[in-house]
Amino acid sequence: MSSAPYDLWYWPSIQGRGEFVRLFMAPAGIDYRDRARDLDAQALVEDMEEREERGGFAPYAPPYLVERDSGFTIAQAAHILTWLTDRHDLGTGEMETDLHLIQLQLTITDIVAEVHGTHHPMASSLYYDDQKEAAAQAAKAFREERIPKYFSYFERAYGVHPGPFAAGGKWSHVDTSIFQLVEGLRYAFPQRMAAIEGDYLALMDARDAVANLGGVASYLDSERRIPFNEDGIFRHYEELDGQ
Amino acid sequence: MSSAPYDLWYWPSIQGRGEFVRLFMAPAGIDYRDRARDLDAQALVEDMEEREERGGFAPYAPPYLVERDSGFTIAQAAHILTWLTDRHDLGTGEMETDLHLIQLQLTITDIVAEVHGTHHPMASSLYYDDQKEAAAQAAKAFREERIPKYFSYFERAYGVHPGPFAAGGKWSHVDTSIFQLVEGLRYAFPQRMAAIEGDYLALMDARDAVANLGGVASYLDSERRIPFNEDGIFRHYEELDGQ
Repeated sequence: MSSAPYDLWYWPSIQGRGEFVRLFMAPAGIDYRDRARDLDAQALVEDMEEREERGGFAPYAPPYLVERDSGFTIAQAAHILTWLTDRHDLGTGEMETDLHLIQLQLTITDIVAEVHGTHHPMASSLYYDDQKEAAAQAAKAFREERIPKYFSYFERAYGVHPGPFAAGGKWSHVDTSIFQLVEGLRYAFPQRMAAIEGDYLALMDARDAVANLGGVASYLDSERRIPFNEDGIFRHYEELDGQ
Repeated sequence: MSSAPYDLWYWPSIQGRGEFVRLFMAPAGIDYRDRARDLDAQALVEDMEEREERGGFAPYAPPYLVERDSGFTIAQAAHILTWLTDRHDLGTGEMETDLHLIQLQLTITDIVAEVHGTHHPMASSLYYDDQKEAAAQAAKAFREERIPKYFSYFERAYGVHPGPFAAGGKWSHVDTSIFQLVEGLRYAFPQRMAAIEGDYLALMDARDAVANLGGVASYLDSERRIPFNEDGIFRHYEELDGQ
């Protein structure tokens, strides 16, 4: 039996929002069982249903993390990251800086939701093919207006402390999330990213510094890293990209 | 000079995300200056620009709250609410419950973003009239699928503790936010809400209990409560409503 202290529950076939949690646990050296990947998607659906029937407080949606000893369960990617940071004493030791990092994480949450909106502007429940025209316009606005607005903001935020990370020399959940955001946008919008990356050198440095953290390269090279695909948040549809 | 300990900065002509903060401060009895309402929208734009030029950590967008004594500034509605709860000792005293409340607040953040998406599915920067057809489909999916999914979830969450509030007998930021969510959806989708409210009695009880908290009625009756309008998050477009 595994002695991993945590169970992570997330859809087994996509990176999705679960990946922000996985990418944090890799350099933190936090061990976990990835339950729906060990089992299957049906097991996740059943776990969600059981929690509902039990009548206690339950997550709205995956990802959620279970502390196996206590059964304590926490959901919402930004909330999980904040909680793990506190639990494993991975904060900066500076209250104000830690609060700023949470604030940045919530702004990353916002842009990630907008990324999903580029291919599903009308409804998650409709097929992409049934909202392609709206998606083309949504993606254009996202590429031309939203990426520069968010990235300029993040770039300035990285300028507050000297060093490759948002808090300076010490990495945090913000950095692993920025890594995933950059990787995801490179996958989804390669033309656009190639055109603008040079304007956001602090973000690209942070991305590279995360790639070099202990535990990250081996995670990325392993089968645990699900490849990007067209069922996740970051999807590559050629017609949605452009310089 | 006002001795209010906080400055709130938010757009002066809409409730928007700032209202979730205002509605928390009313029953908490926390005094604040509502800066852009005392001054104007231009003052908010200038304050944002000054913060950018100063080079320190700055908010991505309003609302943000400034502790006047220290200058400490915090943004993201859910983050502001969590911080104020901690700062003013308004939590339940039960760590696990407080964490669940934050998780619920982040799920409220998600549905509020989806509400905005019903009238601006393609881009915030485009006029409603230029995305009316996509909006009609987005609103239909939101009314028929998303409201019941979120509301069923929140209704179950309210069932965990006996009492009108999410944590039982003691109100929290979740309850004032549920109040605003119900009020906003009643304004935006009156036909739909009339048809389904009876299925969510715990939520409606929570809404009523918040209306009866000290400080709330006087706030709602005052000029400080901006009326709902078609520039905010909750907009009433007759063509987007339906049973």
